[in-house]
Amino acid sequence: MPFSWLEGQGVGAPHGFKVGAGRAGIKTQGLDVALLVADQGATSAAVFTTSQVKAAPVLVSAEHLSKSRPRAIVVNAGNANCCTGEAGTRNARRMCELAGQKLGLEAQEILVCSTGIIGHALPIDKIELALGSMQMNATDEEAARAFMTTDLVPKFVAAQTQIGGETVTVGGQAKGVGMIGPNMAPLSLHATLLAFLTTDARIEAPRLQRLLEIAVARSFNSVTIDGDMSTNDTAILLASGATKIQITHDNEAQFLELLQAVCVELSKKIARDGEGATRLVQIEVAGAATQSDAKTIALSIANSPLVKTAIFGRDPNWGRIAMAAGKAGVPFDASKLSFSLGEVELFRSGEPVSFDQKTAELQLAGEDVFIRLKLGEGNSNWTAWTCDFSYDYVKINAEYHT
Amino acid sequence: MPFSWLEGQGVGAPHGFKVGAGRAGIKTQGLDVALLVADQGATSAAVFTTSQVKAAPVLVSAEHLSKSRPRAIVVNAGNANCCTGEAGTRNARRMCELAGQKLGLEAQEILVCSTGIIGHALPIDKIELALGSMQMNATDEEAARAFMTTDLVPKFVAAQTQIGGETVTVGGQAKGVGMIGPNMAPLSLHATLLAFLTTDARIEAPRLQRLLEIAVARSFNSVTIDGDMSTNDTAILLASGATKIQITHDNEAQFLELLQAVCVELSKKIARDGEGATRLVQIEVAGAATQSDAKTIALSIANSPLVKTAIFGRDPNWGRIAMAAGKAGVPFDASKLSFSLGEVELFRSGEPVSFDQKTAELQLAGEDVFIRLKLGEGNSNWTAWTCDFSYDYVKINAEYHT
Repeated sequence: MPFSWLEGQGVGAPHGFKVGAGRAGIKTQGLDVALLVADQGATSAAVFTTSQVKAAPVLVSAEHLSKSRPRAIVVNAGNANCCTGEAGTRNARRMCELAGQKLGLEAQEILVCSTGIIGHALPIDKIELALGSMQMNATDEEAARAFMTTDLVPKFVAAQTQIGGETVTVGGQAKGVGMIGPNMAPLSLHATLLAFLTTDARIEAPRLQRLLEIAVARSFNSVTIDGDMSTNDTAILLASGATKIQITHDNEAQFLELLQAVCVELSKKIARDGEGATRLVQIEVAGAATQSDAKTIALSIANSPLVKTAIFGRDPNWGRIAMAAGKAGVPFDASKLSFSLGEVELFRSGEPVSFDQKTAELQLAGEDVFIRLKLGEGNSNWTAWTCDFSYDYVKINAEYHT
Repeated sequence: MPFSWLEGQGVGAPHGFKVGAGRAGIKTQGLDVALLVADQGATSAAVFTTSQVKAAPVLVSAEHLSKSRPRAIVVNAGNANCCTGEAGTRNARRMCELAGQKLGLEAQEILVCSTGIIGHALPIDKIELALGSMQMNATDEEAARAFMTTDLVPKFVAAQTQIGGETVTVGGQAKGVGMIGPNMAPLSLHATLLAFLTTDARIEAPRLQRLLEIAVARSFNSVTIDGDMSTNDTAILLASGATKIQITHDNEAQFLELLQAVCVELSKKIARDGEGATRLVQIEVAGAATQSDAKTIALSIANSPLVKTAIFGRDPNWGRIAMAAGKAGVPFDASKLSFSLGEVELFRSGEPVSFDQKTAELQLAGEDVFIRLKLGEGNSNWTAWTCDFSYDYVKINAEYHT
C-alpha cells in the first residue's frame, strides 16, 4: 500500500492532537518547553533507554505508563534532570502535575521527558511559568524545535495511507545529534534521543506497544552518532483513535509499514544532523545467520571511529570496513565476506577486488554514503545509519562546557 | 618483591636474545623490518586478535605455535598483509622461510607479524632484500622503532627482580596508537597492537601461555584508543631459559608480578601515545560483582567519545561518566554509584556532590587523568587505560590515505 508524505507536518498531523511550545529560559535561546496532548483521549506506548543510569523523567514516565493511560507529553530541553538524586524525581513529578493542571488531566496521565546537561538541578520554577502562559496552538515545527539541544534543524515528518477505506495518518518528531547510540526497550529506563509519534488510528495499548517496539528496533535503535547511549532516550507513540479504523491482526502490517517509514525517516534525519556530520552513512548487512548478528555487525561498522574518519576524509580505505565487521564479536567465515561502497565492489568472497580509485572516491562525494556487506551465513539482514566523524564533532563536544 | 627498571633497555635485556632491524622501504621512511631470536632455543606463548577477519600472519603464526616450538619473530611495518587472500597467506609463509634461512631455523620455528595498511599486497621482495642484509646487532630502541606505524615514540621497557636467588629479567616492546581496542585470546587470530615480550627465566610452554594470558588481560586487553580491534593484534612471550631459575607453581606469582608490570608499563605508553592524544586517562572501577563487570564498565568509559572529548576540552562534564557507566550493559544499582575525578569527588551514592569547579578542572590539567568509580555490587575491580579524543585524532585518520 503506497503512502504519501505530508509536507511540513509532524505530530499535529493526525486528528485528535494539540501542541504547545514555549520558552522557559533553560537553553540560552529559543523554545525549550513543549506540550503534546490527545485531548479526547488516547492509548499510549513507550520504550526507554536500557542504561543503568536512568534520568528521573524516564523513571516517572515508566511508572505512569504502567499505572495509568497517559495521553499527553511534557518535555523540556537544556537540562536532562539526570543524576539529580531525589530532588530530580520530585521535579519530574512536579512537571507532570503542572502539565496536568494546564491540560485538565491527572499527573499520571502525563509522560515527561527532559534532555540536556546531566547533573544540574532542573529549574522547575521556570518551567512552571512557561507552562502557565503556554497556548496550545503551536505549529509542528515549533514543537519539534522546542526539544532540540545541539540539533541544527528541527526533525519532523508525517505520512498517511488508506487502511480499510479510511485515511490513517502517523506524525512524528525526533531530536538528538549527540550521545546517540540508543537501545530502547519497554519499561527499562534512561534518553537523549527523544521521539514522539502520533496517529489517529484506533489501537489497543498492547498492540500499540508491540508495533512501536518493532518499528523502533529497525529505526531509532539502529541509528548511532557516537555509540553513547543516553540516560534519557525515550520514544512515545500516542494513538488518538480519532478515525474510525481499528487496527487489528488483519491490518496491522499496513499500519506498521506506515509507522516504520516515519521512524526510519526521522532516524535518517538524526544521523544526517549528527554532531559535526557532513555525510549520512547507510550500512546494509545481508546474508547473516540471524537478524541480531546482522544488526551487531552493522552497528560495529557504524560506530567505528576509523570508518567514520575515513569517510570524512573521502578515503575509500576499505580495510577499516573489514576490521569493523571482524571485531563485532559475531562469528562468520571471512572467506565468504563481500562488500561494496556505493556502486563499487571492494571485496568479494575474501579476496580484494581491483577497483578504480577515482570511482570509489566518487561514492564518498555525495551527501549519502552506502556501505553494503554480504556474509555467507544465512538470510538475515539489517540496516543501520550513522554519520561521518569530523573536526566539528570534537569541537562541539570539547567546547560544550558544563 | 621489589623490581628494578633497566633504563633504555627492551627485548634484548634478558639473556639469550638477539635482535636485528632493517629497512625494506615499505614505510615512507625509517626502519620497517625486525627480527628477534632466542638463539639457544626458547619456549613460546602467544595470544592473537579475536576478530573474525584475521590477517594472514596471524593465521600462520597460530599454526606454527600449535605445531612447533617457535623461538624467533619476524615483523614488518607499513603493510598488515590482511584481506590479501591466498597470496597473503603465501607471503606470510614465505616471510617465515626467509627469516628461517637467515637464522638457520625451520620456517615453523618463526612467528610472523605484520602491521600497517589493510588490503594491499605485501612487498615480499623488499622484505627478502632487507632480511638478507640484516645484522643481528640492533639496539632495543631500533627494534622497537622498526615495527612502528603511526606511533610517535618507540615503546620498550625492561625490568628485573630476584627469584630464588637468581636475577630474572623481562623485556618488552609494543606498538600501536590507532585501531586499538584489543581483545586477544589464545589461538584465535587477528593485531595492530603488537607486543613482544622476552624473559631469561625457564618456563614450560603451558605455564608460559597461562601467565601471558593473565598478564595480557590486565594490560594490553585493557587499553583502548578508539575501540577498533585490529585484524592483526598479537602479543608474544619468548622464554630463553638462559638463567638457572625454573618458574614453578611456587614462584610463579613473583614472575607474574614482574611480567605484569612490564605489560602495564607498555600499555600506558600505548595510551599516552594514542593518535592525537594529549592526556593519559586511567579508569579504575571497584566494587563490581565480577571482574568481567568491572572491566566492561571501565572499557565503556574508556571508549566513550563524549568522555574523551570532554577530557580534551578540560571540562569536568561528569554526567558523561555516569552515562558511559550506565550504557555498559552491566546491571548495577545507580543509587549506590559513586565516582571521582582525580582528587575531587563528583558523585556519591547516586547524588551529585558540590565541588569547586576550578579544583575539578585542575584534575584535567596534568598529563595523567584518573577517573575512579565505586559500585556497591561486590568486591571486584579492574583498571583500563585510554587517551583523550582531539582534533588530531580526526586529522590523522581522515588524512591517512590509502
